[in-house]
Amino acid sequence: MPKHVNPEERRALIENAVIAIATESGFAAVTMRAVALRIGTSTTAITHYVGSREELLRGAIRREIELGQAVAAAAVSGLSSSDALRAYIEWAVLSRDENSHRLWLALVVGATTDPMLRTELDRFNSWWNKQIQIWIESLRPVDPNTAIDMINVLVDGLIVTAFDAGKPWSSDRRTKLLDTVLSSLGL
Amino acid sequence: MPKHVNPEERRALIENAVIAIATESGFAAVTMRAVALRIGTSTTAITHYVGSREELLRGAIRREIELGQAVAAAAVSGLSSSDALRAYIEWAVLSRDENSHRLWLALVVGATTDPMLRTELDRFNSWWNKQIQIWIESLRPVDPNTAIDMINVLVDGLIVTAFDAGKPWSSDRRTKLLDTVLSSLGL
Repeated sequence: MPKHVNPEERRALIENAVIAIATESGFAAVTMRAVALRIGTSTTAITHYVGSREELLRGAIRREIELGQAVAAAAVSGLSSSDALRAYIEWAVLSRDENSHRLWLALVVGATTDPMLRTELDRFNSWWNKQIQIWIESLRPVDPNTAIDMINVLVDGLIVTAFDAGKPWSSDRRTKLLDTVLSSLGL
Repeated sequence: MPKHVNPEERRALIENAVIAIATESGFAAVTMRAVALRIGTSTTAITHYVGSREELLRGAIRREIELGQAVAAAAVSGLSSSDALRAYIEWAVLSRDENSHRLWLALVVGATTDPMLRTELDRFNSWWNKQIQIWIESLRPVDPNTAIDMINVLVDGLIVTAFDAGKPWSSDRRTKLLDTVLSSLGL
């Protein structure tokens, strides 16, 4: 870690390393030692800025999620419910890069065994679902619960299918499915 | 490892341990040492039966996949194309238990970095897609490619949504989405 950086920059460097390791190898691989190695410093230099592995992970995850939420909020700003719903889904499945999807998948997998990751994923999902709920209530599809479930399965499925198939589907291919689902729901 | 078991039983014990560890903690956690610890034996006792970690993993994955494929084949046996397609999807998303889904997710995640896991997942997907293709060709939906993509996104999405949400959705809830998708595709 360069010696001239200030405390905030140091924390950002550390959090970047956490996200990079989790994206590549999953959250189980994020140890204090792995983070220190990644930025070329000692474990002590890390523990000077963060008290525990849990605090380190939580901080990095929240920062990353908040960045994504800010982009999503900007993408839907000023749009009608119908356009906003579509823009929101497109943010989740089309705009984000492969690394963001890989990090999300690492979070989903990690949350099955780590209560802290579970809590952070639940926070994210609660934000996600609240937005969807508002637009669905305003758009009044025939079966709102099925519409919400269908949208969530579509989003999760589109993200995972890329990894399952070994390479991301083209944007056209994903858009086609999004159109099919929204039109079958009358949205 | 009990001393009285024969070579085939020993291999089965070892492969069970591989699957259990991968299901719980992902394929990166499956080391010769972890497998030996799990069945209470030495690493040497494992290497006596399998030459390498790669061979060990490949053998265990193939056994597990072949068991699943045999169940799927039995579930669709003698059915019309329409019923077989539905039974096949139900096998994938409804009949299999949470551990099978967790193992599949571990395989999808592991395949992003391990070429051997990628190869085994591709083999499985090639079998899966071949079957779907045959039924779709016989059922002739308006847009066969979108129908196949939609089914694959539904299956991946239904499996992952359970982990994303923190607990599996009820069978009714999943069946409702399956009905919605198949009917929107005219299948």
